[in-house]
Amino acid sequence: MVLKAPQDSSIIPTQWYNIIPDLPENLPPPILPNGQVAGPEILEEIFPRELVRQEVSSERYIKIPDEILQNYAQAGRPTPLIRARNLEIALKTSARIFFKYEGVLPAGSHKFNTAVAQAYYNMREGVDRLCTETGAGQWGSALSLAGSLFGIKIRVYMVRASYNQKPLRRILMETYGAEVHPSPSSLTRVGRKYLEENPNHPGSLGIAISEAIEDVLSSNGTAKYSLGSVLNHVLLHQTVIGMEALKQLESIGIGVEEVSHVVGCVGGGSNFAGLSYPFIQYKLSGRANTVFIAVEPKAVPSMTMGEYKYDYGDSAGLTPMLKMHTLGHDYVPPPIHAGGLRYHGVAPTLSVLVKNGIVNPIAYSQREVFEAGVLFARTQGIVPAPESAHAVKAVIDIARRYTKGYEKPVILFNLSGHGLLDLAGYSEYLNGRLQDT
Amino acid sequence: MVLKAPQDSSIIPTQWYNIIPDLPENLPPPILPNGQVAGPEILEEIFPRELVRQEVSSERYIKIPDEILQNYAQAGRPTPLIRARNLEIALKTSARIFFKYEGVLPAGSHKFNTAVAQAYYNMREGVDRLCTETGAGQWGSALSLAGSLFGIKIRVYMVRASYNQKPLRRILMETYGAEVHPSPSSLTRVGRKYLEENPNHPGSLGIAISEAIEDVLSSNGTAKYSLGSVLNHVLLHQTVIGMEALKQLESIGIGVEEVSHVVGCVGGGSNFAGLSYPFIQYKLSGRANTVFIAVEPKAVPSMTMGEYKYDYGDSAGLTPMLKMHTLGHDYVPPPIHAGGLRYHGVAPTLSVLVKNGIVNPIAYSQREVFEAGVLFARTQGIVPAPESAHAVKAVIDIARRYTKGYEKPVILFNLSGHGLLDLAGYSEYLNGRLQDT
Repeated sequence: MVLKAPQDSSIIPTQWYNIIPDLPENLPPPILPNGQVAGPEILEEIFPRELVRQEVSSERYIKIPDEILQNYAQAGRPTPLIRARNLEIALKTSARIFFKYEGVLPAGSHKFNTAVAQAYYNMREGVDRLCTETGAGQWGSALSLAGSLFGIKIRVYMVRASYNQKPLRRILMETYGAEVHPSPSSLTRVGRKYLEENPNHPGSLGIAISEAIEDVLSSNGTAKYSLGSVLNHVLLHQTVIGMEALKQLESIGIGVEEVSHVVGCVGGGSNFAGLSYPFIQYKLSGRANTVFIAVEPKAVPSMTMGEYKYDYGDSAGLTPMLKMHTLGHDYVPPPIHAGGLRYHGVAPTLSVLVKNGIVNPIAYSQREVFEAGVLFARTQGIVPAPESAHAVKAVIDIARRYTKGYEKPVILFNLSGHGLLDLAGYSEYLNGRLQDT
Repeated sequence: MVLKAPQDSSIIPTQWYNIIPDLPENLPPPILPNGQVAGPEILEEIFPRELVRQEVSSERYIKIPDEILQNYAQAGRPTPLIRARNLEIALKTSARIFFKYEGVLPAGSHKFNTAVAQAYYNMREGVDRLCTETGAGQWGSALSLAGSLFGIKIRVYMVRASYNQKPLRRILMETYGAEVHPSPSSLTRVGRKYLEENPNHPGSLGIAISEAIEDVLSSNGTAKYSLGSVLNHVLLHQTVIGMEALKQLESIGIGVEEVSHVVGCVGGGSNFAGLSYPFIQYKLSGRANTVFIAVEPKAVPSMTMGEYKYDYGDSAGLTPMLKMHTLGHDYVPPPIHAGGLRYHGVAPTLSVLVKNGIVNPIAYSQREVFEAGVLFARTQGIVPAPESAHAVKAVIDIARRYTKGYEKPVILFNLSGHGLLDLAGYSEYLNGRLQDT
C-alpha cells in the first residue's frame, strides 16, 4: 500500500490553471459604486500590471516563470500527498483518505504559493514596497518571506486582536524582515477614525485591508497592495496544489474519476480553490463525478447564510465591489481561533460554483472542529491549523459513512497549514474552556 | 540545476546503519560504579529487550520493521534534500550547499525517527507506559506522538525552566495525549530532594533523566524508560537521515566522494550521527575524504573542552557510566535558547570518532548562531531551531572560504528542526537583547 506519493521536481506544474473560461456562467466583473465596470486601469492603481492581466485573463493556462518555479522547489514543492492510513483505521472506514500537506512550506501554509508569485511580479515592475493585511498571520508571514526573497519591503497591518494574541506570528514576520503594525493603526486616516471611536479597537480583516489600500493610494506610486485570497489571480497561483495532486494520484494508480470527494476549508477561498479547481475542471467537462465540499465556520457563514450580491472587499469601501456570497462588508466576525476564516465574503469564482451547485458548502462550530484536529494530531501526527481542521472535520464525517469493505471511495483534502503557532486554541479545547460562539 | 532531490518512498532505507563494527577502535562498554561491565540484563531493567539487543549489536545493518517503515512514510519520509541556492547567492560562494530538512516531520524535528522505533519495540513487548525527560521539548513531543500511534501512555519530565518558558511545546505534548510534569517534580525522591533545596529549582536535563529513571525503577516493571539521544540504539535509528541523503544525492548525480563537508549540531549527538555516520562509513573505508564538523555551543563545550572519561548520564547517578566527552554529570549549562544542546556529555560512538580525529568539533556562541539563523530564514524561508542554527553558522563559515568558480565543493548539513516554537529567542536577537553567556 502506497502511503506517500512521489515528490519529484517533475511533478511541479509549469502552468497555473485558470478556471474562468470553464465556469458554467460568465464571471460578473468588479464594479465601482456607480455601477460602472472597474477596468484594468482602476486595478492597476494598487496592483502591478501583470497581476491585473492575470486577474482578468480568460486563458485556461498561464505559464509559471522559471524564477517562481525555482522558489517553489527551494521551498519544498511538490508538497507531500499522504494517505491518512492511521486516521482511516481510527475511523474504521473503508474509504481511502488522502491529503495534500501544504504545512511543509516555509511559514507553514499554502500562502507561500501566491506570495512568491506576487512578490516576483512586483519586483519585475520595480515596486519598492508592498502593503498587506493579515489576521492570524499565515498570509502576512508568507508575504514577508517572499518580500525578503525578492528584495521588496513589506508592511503588514495585522488585526490588533491577533497582534496581541499571537505574538509568535508577528515575530516570524519580523524575522523575515517585515514591518508589522497593529490595525487599526495611527498610520492611516481610516485607522485613526476607528481608534478615535475606540482606542482599544480589536480590528478586523476588513479594516486592515482598508488601511493597507489607503497606505498604497497615498504612496505616490512607490507602494503596491497585495491580497492573500479572494481575487482571481490569487486563487490562480494556488492551483499548483491541485495540479500536483492530480499527477501524484496518477503516479500511484488513482485516476481523477476515482476521486469521490474533494474537501477544503474556506475563508476567502484560496486554499479550497487551489486544491479543487483542477479537479472541478474534470467535473465541468463531464469526465468525473466528484463531490466538492467547501467548509466554513458557523461563526462566519458566508456561503451557507450569506447573500450573493455585489459588496466591498474592505470595511471602508475603498475597493471595487465584487459579486460574491457575503455577510456584508461591515460584518465583524466573532473571535474564533481560525483567524484566517474570519472574512465576510468569498471569492467571486467560488461563489459562481456554489450558486450553480458544483461546490457544496457546509458549516461547523468551533469545538467539533478542534475535536477533529486533536484526533488528526493523535493519529497522523500533524496538528492542523484551526482553519485546516475545518476540512478535517468534514472528511471525518464523510469517511464514517463508508464501512463496507467493497466501498473504497477516495476522499482528498487540503491540509493547508499546521497549527504549531495556534496551540493556545488547542490548550483551551483540551482544558474544556473553548466556547462555541 | 536541481534544487530539490526526489522523495519517492523507495528512497526510505529498509535497514539502519550501525557504525560500531566500523569504528577505528572498540567501543568501551557501559560500566557500573564498581568498574564491572553493565551487561544487557542491567539495561533491560529500564529498556525493552530488542532495544538492548540493538544497543550492544555489532551487526553493520539492522532491518527496519515494516510497521516502522509505514510510520516513516506516513510522517513524510523521505524528508526533502534541498539545495540552499538562495543562501549560496547571498554568501557569494561557489560552494554547493545542500541540507536535509527534518523539520517537515510531525513535531518538527528528527526526533520522530527514533521515537517511533522505540515506541514500537516497547509496544511489542507489552509495555504500558514510557517515561522520559525533555528540555526544550523536541524530544518529548516526538515521543508523545509515537506513544499515541502505538497506544502507549507517555509521561514526560520537562526541565522546569523550559516548562515555564515554552508553554507551546508542553501544549503540543498534551495535544498528543501525554502527561507532562515540570522537573524537578514531587513525583520522585530525586525530584523532592532538589525541590527541598530550592522550591523554584529551574531543573536540568540530568535531573529530569534521574526522575524518569527513578519512576521506571519503582513501577514494578509496568513502565520503561526512553532516551532521545546519546545511546547507540538512538543514533542507529537516526541513520535513516544519512542513508536517504546518500540515495538522494546519487539520484541527482552527486557521488559520496564529491561531498567535501558534512555538518551537524551536537547535544547528545543523535542528529549529527544520523546524517553523518552513513557518510563516515565511506571515509573509514577510504572511499571518500569528507570533513565532518560537529558543532556545539560555547556555553556547553563537551567536545571542545570536556574530558574523555567514564561519567554518568544523569545528575543523580542512576544510569550506568558511559565513556564519553563530558563536562561532568553535575554541570548545569547556562540557559541558552538551544535547550536541546544543554547536555553535559556526548554519545560514546561520537566521542571515539572525535578522539580519533575523524570528526572535528567546533563551538559557537549564541548571538552569532542566531545571526546565522536569521540569514537562513531570510534566504531559504525556514526559521531554524536554535539547535540547528549552530550547524547553519558553521556551514556559512565554511562556504565563505570558496569564492572561485572552479571550486564547487558540496557542503551537506542537517537542518534537524524548525524554530517556530522558539521564536522568542529570535525576538530577543532582533531586539538586541540576546546575551552571549
